[in-house]
Amino acid sequence: MTTNVPLSGKRLWDSLMEMARIGGTAKGGSNRQTLTDLDSEGRHLLQRWAEATGATLCVDRVGNMALTRPGRDPSRKPVAFGSHLDTQPTGGKFDGVLGVLAGLEILRAVHEAGIETEAPLMLINWTNEEGARFSPPMMGSGAAMGIFTEAEVLAKQDSEGAVFGAELARIGWQGATDPAALRDVGAYVELHIEQGKLLEDAGCEIGVVTHALAQNWLEVTIEGEEAHGGSPMAGRRDALMAAAPLIAAIEEIALASITPAGDPGRATVGRLTVYPDSRNIAPSRVWFSIDTRHHDPALLAQMAEEIRARATGIAAARGVRIEVADFWYSPMTPFDPALVGRVRDAAARLGYRHMDMPTGIGHDAVYVARQVPTTMIFCPCHGGLSHNEAESITPEWAEAGMRVLADAVLATAGVAKG
Amino acid sequence: MTTNVPLSGKRLWDSLMEMARIGGTAKGGSNRQTLTDLDSEGRHLLQRWAEATGATLCVDRVGNMALTRPGRDPSRKPVAFGSHLDTQPTGGKFDGVLGVLAGLEILRAVHEAGIETEAPLMLINWTNEEGARFSPPMMGSGAAMGIFTEAEVLAKQDSEGAVFGAELARIGWQGATDPAALRDVGAYVELHIEQGKLLEDAGCEIGVVTHALAQNWLEVTIEGEEAHGGSPMAGRRDALMAAAPLIAAIEEIALASITPAGDPGRATVGRLTVYPDSRNIAPSRVWFSIDTRHHDPALLAQMAEEIRARATGIAAARGVRIEVADFWYSPMTPFDPALVGRVRDAAARLGYRHMDMPTGIGHDAVYVARQVPTTMIFCPCHGGLSHNEAESITPEWAEAGMRVLADAVLATAGVAKG
Repeated sequence: MTTNVPLSGKRLWDSLMEMARIGGTAKGGSNRQTLTDLDSEGRHLLQRWAEATGATLCVDRVGNMALTRPGRDPSRKPVAFGSHLDTQPTGGKFDGVLGVLAGLEILRAVHEAGIETEAPLMLINWTNEEGARFSPPMMGSGAAMGIFTEAEVLAKQDSEGAVFGAELARIGWQGATDPAALRDVGAYVELHIEQGKLLEDAGCEIGVVTHALAQNWLEVTIEGEEAHGGSPMAGRRDALMAAAPLIAAIEEIALASITPAGDPGRATVGRLTVYPDSRNIAPSRVWFSIDTRHHDPALLAQMAEEIRARATGIAAARGVRIEVADFWYSPMTPFDPALVGRVRDAAARLGYRHMDMPTGIGHDAVYVARQVPTTMIFCPCHGGLSHNEAESITPEWAEAGMRVLADAVLATAGVAKG
Repeated sequence: MTTNVPLSGKRLWDSLMEMARIGGTAKGGSNRQTLTDLDSEGRHLLQRWAEATGATLCVDRVGNMALTRPGRDPSRKPVAFGSHLDTQPTGGKFDGVLGVLAGLEILRAVHEAGIETEAPLMLINWTNEEGARFSPPMMGSGAAMGIFTEAEVLAKQDSEGAVFGAELARIGWQGATDPAALRDVGAYVELHIEQGKLLEDAGCEIGVVTHALAQNWLEVTIEGEEAHGGSPMAGRRDALMAAAPLIAAIEEIALASITPAGDPGRATVGRLTVYPDSRNIAPSRVWFSIDTRHHDPALLAQMAEEIRARATGIAAARGVRIEVADFWYSPMTPFDPALVGRVRDAAARLGYRHMDMPTGIGHDAVYVARQVPTTMIFCPCHGGLSHNEAESITPEWAEAGMRVLADAVLATAGVAKG
């Protein structure tokens, strides 16, 4: 399919390195958090690059960028692809960026060769995939696909009280179109680094992503009583001494929750605060986040039940109050079988070692899949590291992912006979 | 001794309530952290009150306030008493303040009655006892008694980077005298709330404090590796999942470290931070403080060894690096037997139920005891609560403590025959 398309792995790699310099960190990563000046700078660079291929930019009211190249058949909906340019505070060079710039490489190669597709091609950069600055993650695709209302996204605040809508306007990236217009695409294919070690361990270049794990995010608040560090321990109601066994239990519960195929659950406590935060005061309050994920939604629900049961037991034993609140949920999401098949076929045809796998991680594609035939392609990353400045991939892996993406996209869009 | 001295429990209580309004919180406590504008306001109020009794103010270069009333015998060193006016961020009305204002009541009563003492009387308000804003605690008495150098105290920074010396100058309380001059007192007696439940549970009004527990403060840093919340848990090196069992172990170790008399150790993890602090990233770094205390210095040292051993085991099992660093140490400190006896005699003579006890908590008196004959008097506080806005005592308890303090102080200073 793509044998006559002048795709360039080198040009892709050079673009990845150039984008990484925007917000580049001393440790070799990128800090290009959403709706910052650096995010804006990255967006402008993408705009310049894509417009040079003849694509037309459309920005919606939550800042999603769609760069469209017309097709020959006016009745066909665009075939969309892309990912996100925003990063974690200590992010890497590839998470999200690879999918966007691999998509850019398709536009460049198709433009260079003068190829006409039946359906339009649309490269998308989704706003705030990471959720690091404004929580929850995947807000741009979520607003487009009806997971969140536009109003709630625009009203979100970061930890310093800055408002999403105001920050979007401040950096100059609030467009006029309705985010819901992005539901009106014919297909969506997203290339992304795996953020795990399965592909590397198996020696595969391509992950054919068949579905997304269910996710359940919780918040725990423990209320005890302050006590001076010199007071006897008997009778204390120390919130952190209650949190410690609960956090240990969360890990145990995840590891013990195993599908018949042998896949365990996943649990992360990524944020935790203590109050009043003084060396010689036993804390009266501890708050922490829990991120749990599973292949099996029933086992995921059971994990939450077990966490709640453990919290109840600890609360009773220690005389503290523990609240376990729901924060966010994403159901198990199957990807479109035809697109999954097309990715698998492309990998085989191009001679890449590939394997079927789920994504354990939320991606814009998971939201898009609720409205649009969608799939994902994974490429390996060293040691499974991501959300980390040391995140790394090889140019060969990037090129393999890009070629499979191009093949699946062009097979779906249809290449007009010359 | 004090039968002819017109001490007033009501006047003491009224002064406590008036001081508490400076930085008063909605929950009935006080937030009068060291070297804030509110600290300065409290100091000015004390100055006005004490100068009205004829006392003379001297402020040293770390901000310690000494208010001195001359004695008849020029060869006698002052008999000092007092405590601190600074509070925790969510402090109560009595921690520290009681000792200062009970001392003020002695000056008032002695002035009112025209009593002449042989030795001068000196009321002291020590700077930054709490250590909440600038750590470590008891900096003013520590600088005076040679625990810290003046230069290191003045250079300390709070969590926002404000410098101790600059803040002291800003609020107008940096004096000219050498803090070490305060070593040149004949005795020091400090009244304080117990900050535990032993007195209340035993139905005693007075604690005769015989010694201070040894304290050992540590800092733990755990370095693992960031991992995305959706990545498989196998192979993760999650710093918080390593911290949780270590914190649980710290509690176990303290409770299991018991003297032959049945007194267990004490351990508090009061501060904890996670990095990078994102819901869907397994933390790569966790830092926390440990405050351990014990009657027996050997058992205290053994607690630290056991914590280090547990840290080593967890680090090896989880592939993380754990550093357990010494932060601060205070040895077991016996108080002056003659002063302890004078307090015990005063309590008995005044008809108060009393018991001998140690202090598990650091106080300015513990530093002063390294240079000066020193003791402490405890009065009960409800439920042992302190470092808490709900901290409470009865007017009767405050008066009992103040009367025993006055008796011990005047017995030590000597009342001139009229």
